[in-house]
Amino acid sequence: MGRSKKTITLAHGNGGRFSHELVRTVFLTRFENRHLAELSDSAVLPNRGRRLSFTTDGYVVRPPFFPGGDIGRLAVCGTVNDLAVSGAVPAYMAAGFIIEEGFAISDLEKIADSMREAAGEADVMVVTGDTKVVEKGNADGIFITTSGIGFLEDDHEFSPRRLQPGDRVLVSGTLGDHAVAIMRARNQFPLSVTVESDAAPLSGLIRDVLRRLPAGSVKVLRDPTRGGLATTLNEFAAVSRRSIELDETAIPVKDEVRAVCELTGFDPLYLANEGKLVLGVAAEAADDALEILTEHPFGKHAALIGEVTDDPLCRVYLSTQAGGTRIVDMLTHDMLPRIC
Amino acid sequence: MGRSKKTITLAHGNGGRFSHELVRTVFLTRFENRHLAELSDSAVLPNRGRRLSFTTDGYVVRPPFFPGGDIGRLAVCGTVNDLAVSGAVPAYMAAGFIIEEGFAISDLEKIADSMREAAGEADVMVVTGDTKVVEKGNADGIFITTSGIGFLEDDHEFSPRRLQPGDRVLVSGTLGDHAVAIMRARNQFPLSVTVESDAAPLSGLIRDVLRRLPAGSVKVLRDPTRGGLATTLNEFAAVSRRSIELDETAIPVKDEVRAVCELTGFDPLYLANEGKLVLGVAAEAADDALEILTEHPFGKHAALIGEVTDDPLCRVYLSTQAGGTRIVDMLTHDMLPRIC
Repeated sequence: MGRSKKTITLAHGNGGRFSHELVRTVFLTRFENRHLAELSDSAVLPNRGRRLSFTTDGYVVRPPFFPGGDIGRLAVCGTVNDLAVSGAVPAYMAAGFIIEEGFAISDLEKIADSMREAAGEADVMVVTGDTKVVEKGNADGIFITTSGIGFLEDDHEFSPRRLQPGDRVLVSGTLGDHAVAIMRARNQFPLSVTVESDAAPLSGLIRDVLRRLPAGSVKVLRDPTRGGLATTLNEFAAVSRRSIELDETAIPVKDEVRAVCELTGFDPLYLANEGKLVLGVAAEAADDALEILTEHPFGKHAALIGEVTDDPLCRVYLSTQAGGTRIVDMLTHDMLPRIC
Repeated sequence: MGRSKKTITLAHGNGGRFSHELVRTVFLTRFENRHLAELSDSAVLPNRGRRLSFTTDGYVVRPPFFPGGDIGRLAVCGTVNDLAVSGAVPAYMAAGFIIEEGFAISDLEKIADSMREAAGEADVMVVTGDTKVVEKGNADGIFITTSGIGFLEDDHEFSPRRLQPGDRVLVSGTLGDHAVAIMRARNQFPLSVTVESDAAPLSGLIRDVLRRLPAGSVKVLRDPTRGGLATTLNEFAAVSRRSIELDETAIPVKDEVRAVCELTGFDPLYLANEGKLVLGVAAEAADDALEILTEHPFGKHAALIGEVTDDPLCRVYLSTQAGGTRIVDMLTHDMLPRIC
């Protein structure tokens, strides 16, 4: 059997010789660092900061390769972003793979390449991992669960609880790019669309914002992934016990994404993003925040999109282009399972 | 539809309203702590120690419920043990669930109950998590990936690199119980066997050993899971550049497990354990180590089973009951996939 046809077998997941070989050839060569090289079941790491941030996320995106990225890039960026929005500097990652027997090792290598690249962009180390293999038909190609540790450098708290009436809501760029890229990969519409996934590590962008704005002026940071902006802002409203008013005309959406939404009935407010940031900031810092965001490659299309109000109903309202107002609820059923 | 028939739907994994409800009703009620209650995508945690230990492991055991435990107990104990064998005190855990559409919510609740119980035994907090749902036929019931953080209280290093000729090898109890319990659950043999999984958190046992033995006398600790004792000791031999001689008559194996092995052709040295500890200790501390182990409920059947030698071939040798010697290699192919 030629090298190009090598596939994952159950023996790659049994913890014995083949597992070790897979780890050495596919992972160690890519995520080279002294912690991983120990090949023990846990990594012992220097302790860099005051408080820790700790997160985990499973990735089951279908298909695993899509315009602008793949499950590996997604798995690294998603975990980096979850750490960064807590105010932490992402430092260490762990990667757990669940692979279906028969998955091409060359595809696993491509995914590991993407993970290495994204980890490099975010300046995090993949320090430990695990691989399990299940029989053909008992998984769908590959699932990756990444977890991460970041360190907080100061005592600031970022939480929707800190939102006050008058605070402004910003978003770092266009909504729905990731979801539309996945639809493209699934051939879900006949249009010729060029939108790519926005999957990107936001730790650099967040660091710029936090370093350059006055301490305390950033109230909350969040990456609107599954459930989209609508779900993130409903969480803000519920936790803060405030409401949020959005200006539809201010919300950045690519023309192509808007066209796909019109064709398919999706609403960009509910579409998943994998490289976008939502911020709640004090009113007096909003203009500076917007400027800092737009100076960064991942924030070029940032916009000021709304405001926190003292309405006690904990709702998200949208002032529509047509001049009306509608309530934007949390996502209930969506038609795009396995978006990440 | 009655409560008892509620099953997981794709909407439980979309990050919206149903995901939130599932987290609140199934997980928050069980893993009650202020970190998890934040319901943000990462937990911000106090920093308790000098160095960190960080680990991840995926659990795909089939079936998810088996004599002596379930996938939830396994997922907590496995991660606790990986932290504890690095010398760390396990502190925080994250749990990522990948669930097949149609999985019974009552089963998920049982699994979460087991996780809570095991986390309580090990004194760790489940502080963050994630749930993804895949379409029916694209997974096998439930997969759980747990990761954990522990803190090291001092600067001791536990590594097979520290093994020297003359050091003793001990094991904390009988081998193969977990694997045989899984075989029982799969009805893989006609015998009436009562063996249960040994799945247990070893952090308490390890703490006792480390506190009571002279500093530095414990060289390496490891939990022999997938691949069994044979694979663990081959890793010790490879990393230490030493060989290890085992005394077959000293290795504790339950009569029932031995009978199953004779019937099925399995070798207890390769069977997975989920609540056993292998230790490499300085010769002069070996008797005390054995005494400390046997005083603990999880170490009652501990035994001194071998010795490190200066043979440079990095092999594991077994002095057999029959008076011969054979080389014990690392696991290559096994016939028990998805044991954990």
